[in-house]
Amino acid sequence: MSNRGVVRKNEKEEENLISMVDYVRVSFKTHDIDHIIQNVLHINRDYMTEKPKGFYGYIGTWEMDMIKVMYSSPDDERGILIEFSGKGCRQFESFLECRKKTWFDFFQDCLNEKGNFTRLDIAIDDKRTYFTIPSLLEKAQKGLCVSRFRKSDYNGSLDIGDGRLGGTTLYFGSKKSDAYLCFYEKNFEQAEKYNIPYEEMEDWNRYEIRLKNERAHSAVGELIKDRNLTSIGMAIINNYVRFVEEDGPEEKRKRETSPFWLEFIGDVKKLRLYTKPQTDFYEKSRNWLKNSCAPTMKMILEADRALGKNDLSDMITDAELQDKHEKMLEAYLTPIHEMVV
Amino acid sequence: MSNRGVVRKNEKEEENLISMVDYVRVSFKTHDIDHIIQNVLHINRDYMTEKPKGFYGYIGTWEMDMIKVMYSSPDDERGILIEFSGKGCRQFESFLECRKKTWFDFFQDCLNEKGNFTRLDIAIDDKRTYFTIPSLLEKAQKGLCVSRFRKSDYNGSLDIGDGRLGGTTLYFGSKKSDAYLCFYEKNFEQAEKYNIPYEEMEDWNRYEIRLKNERAHSAVGELIKDRNLTSIGMAIINNYVRFVEEDGPEEKRKRETSPFWLEFIGDVKKLRLYTKPQTDFYEKSRNWLKNSCAPTMKMILEADRALGKNDLSDMITDAELQDKHEKMLEAYLTPIHEMVV
Repeated sequence: MSNRGVVRKNEKEEENLISMVDYVRVSFKTHDIDHIIQNVLHINRDYMTEKPKGFYGYIGTWEMDMIKVMYSSPDDERGILIEFSGKGCRQFESFLECRKKTWFDFFQDCLNEKGNFTRLDIAIDDKRTYFTIPSLLEKAQKGLCVSRFRKSDYNGSLDIGDGRLGGTTLYFGSKKSDAYLCFYEKNFEQAEKYNIPYEEMEDWNRYEIRLKNERAHSAVGELIKDRNLTSIGMAIINNYVRFVEEDGPEEKRKRETSPFWLEFIGDVKKLRLYTKPQTDFYEKSRNWLKNSCAPTMKMILEADRALGKNDLSDMITDAELQDKHEKMLEAYLTPIHEMVV
Repeated sequence: MSNRGVVRKNEKEEENLISMVDYVRVSFKTHDIDHIIQNVLHINRDYMTEKPKGFYGYIGTWEMDMIKVMYSSPDDERGILIEFSGKGCRQFESFLECRKKTWFDFFQDCLNEKGNFTRLDIAIDDKRTYFTIPSLLEKAQKGLCVSRFRKSDYNGSLDIGDGRLGGTTLYFGSKKSDAYLCFYEKNFEQAEKYNIPYEEMEDWNRYEIRLKNERAHSAVGELIKDRNLTSIGMAIINNYVRFVEEDGPEEKRKRETSPFWLEFIGDVKKLRLYTKPQTDFYEKSRNWLKNSCAPTMKMILEADRALGKNDLSDMITDAELQDKHEKMLEAYLTPIHEMVV
């Protein structure tokens, strides 16, 4: 197995259903970036890189790969924004783990500093596959879904040769709204991404809960209260979407919940927040070098040998590390506990 | 009927199947923008506006609403790019019509100036609806589509309340490739856009042929040869996609084409290029004013009356027209034949 997180058939996983924090955006109405990095991230800023660019109107970023802290100009009320993508969440977990802290502690730190959460994604990986996404779509098309959402979007692909379905994605609620669910077939996505035949992939559904603005902020409040995911997973998935039987009362809300959904929700109730800490800031570049550049390096080395030259080693000696390389190397060589504050 | 081009039920259309040029991008390896505007667009540059911005690496744009001509810096081999969006194509048709010219003449002008076509979209509007898009998707899923494309993507939406389908879109071929087809339900798109109940919309499918780079350029060559769309519509739709019967030989390529598809292709063969010239450069702003600002204007006027003030009229007197307003007004007030060169 490669270290890309791709899971092929027959590779055992301990848990069938795991949940993770998958995206975080939290803003602070302050311009004291040292204070936020020290008291919220607890990372030594010396190991981070500054870039004179940001998104969403922020003018600069302090970052360690996908862990990003953006700042605005002193007269801009935006203040500071912490953003972790899915990868950034995994990387931040290595810092949490080192400090023997959890996401709940991070959320609390944010609230202590009057942070305002504007985005929170929770992802649930389902490797048992309680249902298939196309079957869920079919049920929704038959009107067997009871939901507070009015609309569902979907997309998918098929092999024209034999009509076989590729990955299907199903959304509950509008992508523009402050709360929606996205259910998709992670195995197809991974097969596509890494060019592996579908047949070799194990079953793997991914359910994502995407919350914005007030919805994100209040979900964090709930999470801290219980210090587990039960409330939020349940509150969101079960309160928003329920699949019912075809038989029963005319009014579908009064019908019984389908057994497959009951079983799924029963297990969602037991979910704990899972962490998969990653410290591959350096690994990523190393793998890129290995995969994309190694053949060329080898070719040059062979030419050097044949011609009695030192082209490759000269090239390496003469190269200048960019700031990001210095930081990456430093982060790689520094035990993580030395980077936390 | 509004002037937005929305067609509700029971409004007669003369033709069931019409085709249009729906996107054009053509580049010229010259920096002589006066020459291109004069000899390819045949529009008097005095009626166009210059903007110090462009896309795809171009640094500036001369435009008349959606008719755009971008230029690069003198040392940049990009040269000049003409781009018409769907709306731009309709607007350009008013200039063609005025000069008693057709798209074929424009294409010929481009080739005379060594233009290189990098995008060409042909759209076919089907108001008879030879088939429904969801039924086509179903057939493709049953493996009843014979195609040179390997993959088909689709997306759609449904009403969770009753499972009813919203608009479905079906692609043949990859959106990243140089040739693909996009079939969608224009009535649903329009209903969504203008917030009209689906039930009030007449049937309306839209089939788009999207060609890039060499595919776009050679299609233009074909178009000029025949001076009609038959070759291209047929060459593309029929050669790329064919729906066959469930019964017949095991190998589906050998099966008979389904009657519904034969009938559709038969009519595509007879297609002529349709034009819908539009001269609404000014109308657009006027409608925006009417729809978005008129209530506020009225409110202020009423306050003025009650208080004996002249706030609204002062506001109008004191306003300064931006360059774009001047141009729009000029274009609106100038008979189109005075703008062509």
